[in-house]
Amino acid sequence: MAYFGDPVLAADLLFRPDHSVIDQSLNSRLGATTTNGDGFGLGWYGAGPEPAVYKSTHPAWSDPNLRELAQQVRTHLLFAHVRASTGTAVQRSNCHPFRHGRWLWMHNGQIAEFPTLKRDLVLAVDPGLYPSIEGSTDSEVLFFLALTFGLEDDPFEAVARAVGLVEDVARAHGVENAVQMTVATANGDCLWGFRYSTEGRSRSLYYSQDVAQLRRLHPDVAVLKGLGPETRLIVSEPLLNLPGAWTGVPEGSAGIVRPGTDEIRPFVPIPAG
Amino acid sequence: MAYFGDPVLAADLLFRPDHSVIDQSLNSRLGATTTNGDGFGLGWYGAGPEPAVYKSTHPAWSDPNLRELAQQVRTHLLFAHVRASTGTAVQRSNCHPFRHGRWLWMHNGQIAEFPTLKRDLVLAVDPGLYPSIEGSTDSEVLFFLALTFGLEDDPFEAVARAVGLVEDVARAHGVENAVQMTVATANGDCLWGFRYSTEGRSRSLYYSQDVAQLRRLHPDVAVLKGLGPETRLIVSEPLLNLPGAWTGVPEGSAGIVRPGTDEIRPFVPIPAG
Amino acid sequence: MAYFGDPVLAADLLFRPDHSVIDQSLNSRLGATTTNGDGFGLGWYGAGPEPAVYKSTHPAWSDPNLRELAQQVRTHLLFAHVRASTGTAVQRSNCHPFRHGRWLWMHNGQIAEFPTLKRDLVLAVDPGLYPSIEGSTDSEVLFFLALTFGLEDDPFEAVARAVGLVEDVARAHGVENAVQMTVATANGDCLWGFRYSTEGRSRSLYYSQDVAQLRRLHPDVAVLKGLGPETRLIVSEPLLNLPGAWTGVPEGSAGIVRPGTDEIRPFVPIPAG
Amino acid sequence: MAYFGDPVLAADLLFRPDHSVIDQSLNSRLGATTTNGDGFGLGWYGAGPEPAVYKSTHPAWSDPNLRELAQQVRTHLLFAHVRASTGTAVQRSNCHPFRHGRWLWMHNGQIAEFPTLKRDLVLAVDPGLYPSIEGSTDSEVLFFLALTFGLEDDPFEAVARAVGLVEDVARAHGVENAVQMTVATANGDCLWGFRYSTEGRSRSLYYSQDVAQLRRLHPDVAVLKGLGPETRLIVSEPLLNLPGAWTGVPEGSAGIVRPGTDEIRPFVPIPAG
Repeated sequence: MAYFGDPVLAADLLFRPDHSVIDQSLNSRLGATTTNGDGFGLGWYGAGPEPAVYKSTHPAWSDPNLRELAQQVRTHLLFAHVRASTGTAVQRSNCHPFRHGRWLWMHNGQIAEFPTLKRDLVLAVDPGLYPSIEGSTDSEVLFFLALTFGLEDDPFEAVARAVGLVEDVARAHGVENAVQMTVATANGDCLWGFRYSTEGRSRSLYYSQDVAQLRRLHPDVAVLKGLGPETRLIVSEPLLNLPGAWTGVPEGSAGIVRPGTDEIRPFVPIPAG
Repeated sequence: MAYFGDPVLAADLLFRPDHSVIDQSLNSRLGATTTNGDGFGLGWYGAGPEPAVYKSTHPAWSDPNLRELAQQVRTHLLFAHVRASTGTAVQRSNCHPFRHGRWLWMHNGQIAEFPTLKRDLVLAVDPGLYPSIEGSTDSEVLFFLALTFGLEDDPFEAVARAVGLVEDVARAHGVENAVQMTVATANGDCLWGFRYSTEGRSRSLYYSQDVAQLRRLHPDVAVLKGLGPETRLIVSEPLLNLPGAWTGVPEGSAGIVRPGTDEIRPFVPIPAG
Repeated sequence: MAYFGDPVLAADLLFRPDHSVIDQSLNSRLGATTTNGDGFGLGWYGAGPEPAVYKSTHPAWSDPNLRELAQQVRTHLLFAHVRASTGTAVQRSNCHPFRHGRWLWMHNGQIAEFPTLKRDLVLAVDPGLYPSIEGSTDSEVLFFLALTFGLEDDPFEAVARAVGLVEDVARAHGVENAVQMTVATANGDCLWGFRYSTEGRSRSLYYSQDVAQLRRLHPDVAVLKGLGPETRLIVSEPLLNLPGAWTGVPEGSAGIVRPGTDEIRPFVPIPAG
Repeated sequence: MAYFGDPVLAADLLFRPDHSVIDQSLNSRLGATTTNGDGFGLGWYGAGPEPAVYKSTHPAWSDPNLRELAQQVRTHLLFAHVRASTGTAVQRSNCHPFRHGRWLWMHNGQIAEFPTLKRDLVLAVDPGLYPSIEGSTDSEVLFFLALTFGLEDDPFEAVARAVGLVEDVARAHGVENAVQMTVATANGDCLWGFRYSTEGRSRSLYYSQDVAQLRRLHPDVAVLKGLGPETRLIVSEPLLNLPGAWTGVPEGSAGIVRPGTDEIRPFVPIPAG
């Protein structure tokens, strides 16, 4: 879940007790889902130039500190991630979102046969960035490949080159369907989303519609009233049943959310060769 | 889950990788169940007069120490419990099984409106035992009430009096359906099981049939071959689909498992008055 | 450590990297002290009517979330506590500060032979407050006794009556030197400190001098420049070597810190009889 | 601390309550030392071909599971390690001892400027072993370099080549005093110890003297009576004040402890070139 818009209390997004809109469904998402109990993380832009992160290896639903924190954090850009491990250790350094300078990154999906490919992928990371890798996940390596290829200058191209490299390395090792990903990344000013898989069957990704229009459709939904026209949510699954609220990101697409006009475009990996 | 019988490696009960009998289903129970991620515990009789306990507030499925331990523990009497909190804190002192001297105790269910009743129930605990209460759960208070009423001498009567007292206190506070419980308790030599609820609709509890008979019915099931005739499992849900393997404990019953003849009898609370 | 004054970034109090004033010494206090590794806690007044708390059973010095949080929390009233267990379990519900409504409470010291006295003390807690006791420490029971005796109306009298009761109960059990305590408590508007022990040899407690005067004495100390005239710190040990910066709270005293004139007065327990 | 000899209860080594020999001092080591609160680990050879490990990021002194476990584990070869982080994260995968197949490895010391050297060192690890690296420490990389250079065949040569490589890489980066180490490693049948530093001022390492001789010197020391003649302890600091009990491993030495005659020899790194 990534939120970008008017400053909002994190608890209103994560734990709102009433059943109005985002809240309850997100709450159930963070809490009751079977397979996402392998740690979680929040990232947000608050005081200071760099985003803050709060990560824990305990299930989100039983972390009292998270509830405390959510009542205190007000932010215009929030990342929330619950993790279901795909094999790597349940430890803080493997929890999303990952951070580098002003950038946050979170990823659902996986790099196929990552233990086999890991060494070659890590070798492709800029040696100057290499010491900053803290954990052992495919998701963090993908982030550092994107940073290596210029994430801070051109996120669309950098991620395309990172994915292209992973597919190259996978091909060299005879590994099929190398990449399965939905990614959200941000620098505090803008938010980018990516939906792609080598085999063309990516996990779902949705973004919220124009809030002004939603308010006209659903004048009775309380949480919508407090949100400005630029507010956007990007989620793996729709958080509520409001007709017209969510638009699926098309297969093989990437988009940018920012003040002003958002944009969505096709995503095509750029091979290394 | 409570096991009593020939010494067995805990891992064979908890994590056996093949799909033969107990293993896979128990594994899924310990691992994949949605709502039981609020800590877990093992208790077993090994070296020394008192049982050992291993408890953690992390989900069982992601605890590497549990897997290590299960490969080293061989015991004739094992308790395993995964906890879904009914409101009290997720902390080690609230994890089952509870221990007092040679006794282990675990409980599924709840005392209705426990915060309301807690003070009166705790007051009824023997003052000499009171300082040994470590956590904040209804389950541990029920254990200490049973100890107060003579668990170490006559478990059937002691639990009946403990439950009777809870029902008395609940009635005085206008609380209905006071007790919902399946309980397993042991002293290293015998194992007792209880199934009862005030309203007469208790959670399920099963015990395994005679192993010799099971082997005749299912000569191809590997795990049965290593087990002696006295082996018994008591479980909340059947662990496998072997026809004839499991017998439900009747509503309002209590039983004892021991070397020689087991016994099952009606369970009737004894009011305090 | 309790801070009351101009809004300040928690990190400036807890982790300031330069060696100026509070920072380094407090950092060493939170980090390098041998025996205070049994959990820690922060409490502060921020958004919303109730204070927030952040507690962990990991040592403060190795908790990355604490460092993140301290960079985001700005508050006029901060409690920080590192715990060295005097016997009770290392679990979140035993970490200070404790909270009830708008009140925070933290305690250094102990009630002598607490397991012996606990039952009688807990019985003296208002039955309506009893269910809110979450942990198993003497410190929390002392807090609930103070609440029982009117902490929210008259903290000086309420704590005097709570301590008097503990001494009464101890006497009845033949326990000497019942109470050893330094306490800080707050409601968001004021901060109270207590230094007392039955035997008259209490742990140390200090408060910071008038900031305006300190600035005249030490015009070169950077951190002083940002602080307003009302700023006060209450600490167990002086945090820096500035001559004239700290005044010891006298044995058997209690004080109030508030906007306007602070006050310090003798503290005399009020027996229950 | 590494123990090799007659099967012994881990608790007798780690937590013996009386003040006789190893116990109390080791207990204080595991418990009261300021700077070693960043996790701990046990490794031992028990049931099954591979050693078991138990690791935790909580301080050893407050881990109730460790006390339970120590009462159940009986072994002829035990490693115990308390960690003071030299900069890498406090997470289970960074806790010693490390394990690979039948091998255990633990290390006190550090590789100088490890973040600078890490990439080149990791590249030198056998690509087939590379995916088994789980954490982010210099100690684990040193283990995997030793495995790469044949630890399982000739530990003396393998460690000499691993250290030689680290010194080569350090020299190429202009890093001085590359290696500071005391290492213990074992395969279940033998135990090897190493003491070396590039600058020739290594951390201390001691081994226990012949038990039969010690018994003649100290006929009143209880714990010595239960130990067979082959028993050996290797420790960073002497665990008791028995005159004649401990012999320092000389600077730049390596030794093997095994049934029969032990051996100690000079340790000289073998450069890669």
